[in-house]
Amino acid sequence: MAEPLTVDRPDDPRLSDYTGLTDVDLRRTREPAEGLFIAEGEKVIRRALRAGYRMRSMLLSAKWLEVMRDVIDASDAPVYAVTPELAERVTGYHVHRGALASMQRKPLPSAAGALGSARRVAVMESVNDHTNIGAVFRSAAALGMDAVLLSPDCADPLYRRSVKVSMGAVFAVPYARVETWPRDLEEVRAAGFRLLALTPDERAVPIDTAVPRDGTGAGTGARVALMLGAEGRGLSARALAAADEWVRIPMAHGVDSLNVGAAAAVAFYAVARGRDGEG
Amino acid sequence: MAEPLTVDRPDDPRLSDYTGLTDVDLRRTREPAEGLFIAEGEKVIRRALRAGYRMRSMLLSAKWLEVMRDVIDASDAPVYAVTPELAERVTGYHVHRGALASMQRKPLPSAAGALGSARRVAVMESVNDHTNIGAVFRSAAALGMDAVLLSPDCADPLYRRSVKVSMGAVFAVPYARVETWPRDLEEVRAAGFRLLALTPDERAVPIDTAVPRDGTGAGTGARVALMLGAEGRGLSARALAAADEWVRIPMAHGVDSLNVGAAAAVAFYAVARGRDGEG
Repeated sequence: MAEPLTVDRPDDPRLSDYTGLTDVDLRRTREPAEGLFIAEGEKVIRRALRAGYRMRSMLLSAKWLEVMRDVIDASDAPVYAVTPELAERVTGYHVHRGALASMQRKPLPSAAGALGSARRVAVMESVNDHTNIGAVFRSAAALGMDAVLLSPDCADPLYRRSVKVSMGAVFAVPYARVETWPRDLEEVRAAGFRLLALTPDERAVPIDTAVPRDGTGAGTGARVALMLGAEGRGLSARALAAADEWVRIPMAHGVDSLNVGAAAAVAFYAVARGRDGEG
Repeated sequence: MAEPLTVDRPDDPRLSDYTGLTDVDLRRTREPAEGLFIAEGEKVIRRALRAGYRMRSMLLSAKWLEVMRDVIDASDAPVYAVTPELAERVTGYHVHRGALASMQRKPLPSAAGALGSARRVAVMESVNDHTNIGAVFRSAAALGMDAVLLSPDCADPLYRRSVKVSMGAVFAVPYARVETWPRDLEEVRAAGFRLLALTPDERAVPIDTAVPRDGTGAGTGARVALMLGAEGRGLSARALAAADEWVRIPMAHGVDSLNVGAAAAVAFYAVARGRDGEG
């Protein structure tokens, strides 16, 4: 338990975890290097703690001291009480959620570690937009994907915006980076996963026939790794070549694509329904 | 065919369709009242024309005159050539897509008219965010919904941002406003539709059992109207009471919701797959 410390200078070194939060380039480098990430808002902070992340400190405006009292009491991390104006000067924006926490990252598992006993995993290639990666994690968690693998150039799931858009789902689903892309997908296959590449290509099979519900199809018994590319470009030729099968979401009305969040949600649902059957 | 007219004054009355495009409140009132909407970017303009909307005028910077030459040649609408700086002064933002068209709205069909021979319709309640309504239309078109009905307080699908996010899908799917909400849903039911309300409520049945693929379930033969509420609040109690059945998307990892775009996409997919069967 820590008593809140009132801080009134923007250059107070104790606030350094929170400086320049709107400078994406700076934060993208600094946060992994320093082993921290920022959780914003009561709900996300509580979810990070429940997921076992250690709190380094909290930055609160006065009205949040009461709301977060139980969190403060249960933690040894220092709590800095600041005015909304000071919070804005330090972070660079108006912190309307009123509560920020600096959390300690955990070492990422290896790909094999993240796979563990997972039956269904999402594999993302070059999804380098923080909003999109957060949205995909939220859907992956909700729709029953057991783990996520990321190509080396995917955005950081623990970046503030990713965490926020995911509603904390980045804490709920284990994830890892694939070191050599796409070569190391071979290890995923060796672990018994069938690699399905999501693509609008007409030669791909409809996703619900690739992962059939009735248990008679090729997917039966196999673990499934669903590969997704970035908005617009989709999966690279090399990634498509590394897959066992290409799958597509059937489209109507001459529409040629869904946005990446919608496509991912549909694909996760199809994969989950296919293997679980009814109910 | 019209020869492009060079315009060099921001207060030229011929540009009045394009003034103050960043003023959402102003445009939200003005556009329906004056019977116009704004299509932004080459692809969206072409899609609006293909869908039969009449062009009132076009506003182009020099480099777009060549790209849009065939459109200019095929139209009687005046074309105003402006510098990027002038376009920005008139519209209030940097028009990086370089081409704007003012299009004439068509009279909206009645709900019965929009339903026509549709088998699957999406019914939205209080989705008053332009980004969300655009995203839902894009998914509705791609995933085979035949029409969309909107409660009176839904956002305008022809607002610039809705059109853009939908990638022009708002032109591809017929839609109408329900006049008295939710009472007029009775007419939808009378037309043979089963009203399914999407909700996270635990008492709801999983959506794939409500709309079964194998044709043995209650959905067989019925036309399906899938009701969706806004992000966060979901459907109102009155709308839920007006439904024939409540359906939910099964969730994992303790996640309690999807974002509205992801939820809509999954629900549309489930409804389409359920009634069509394989492939």
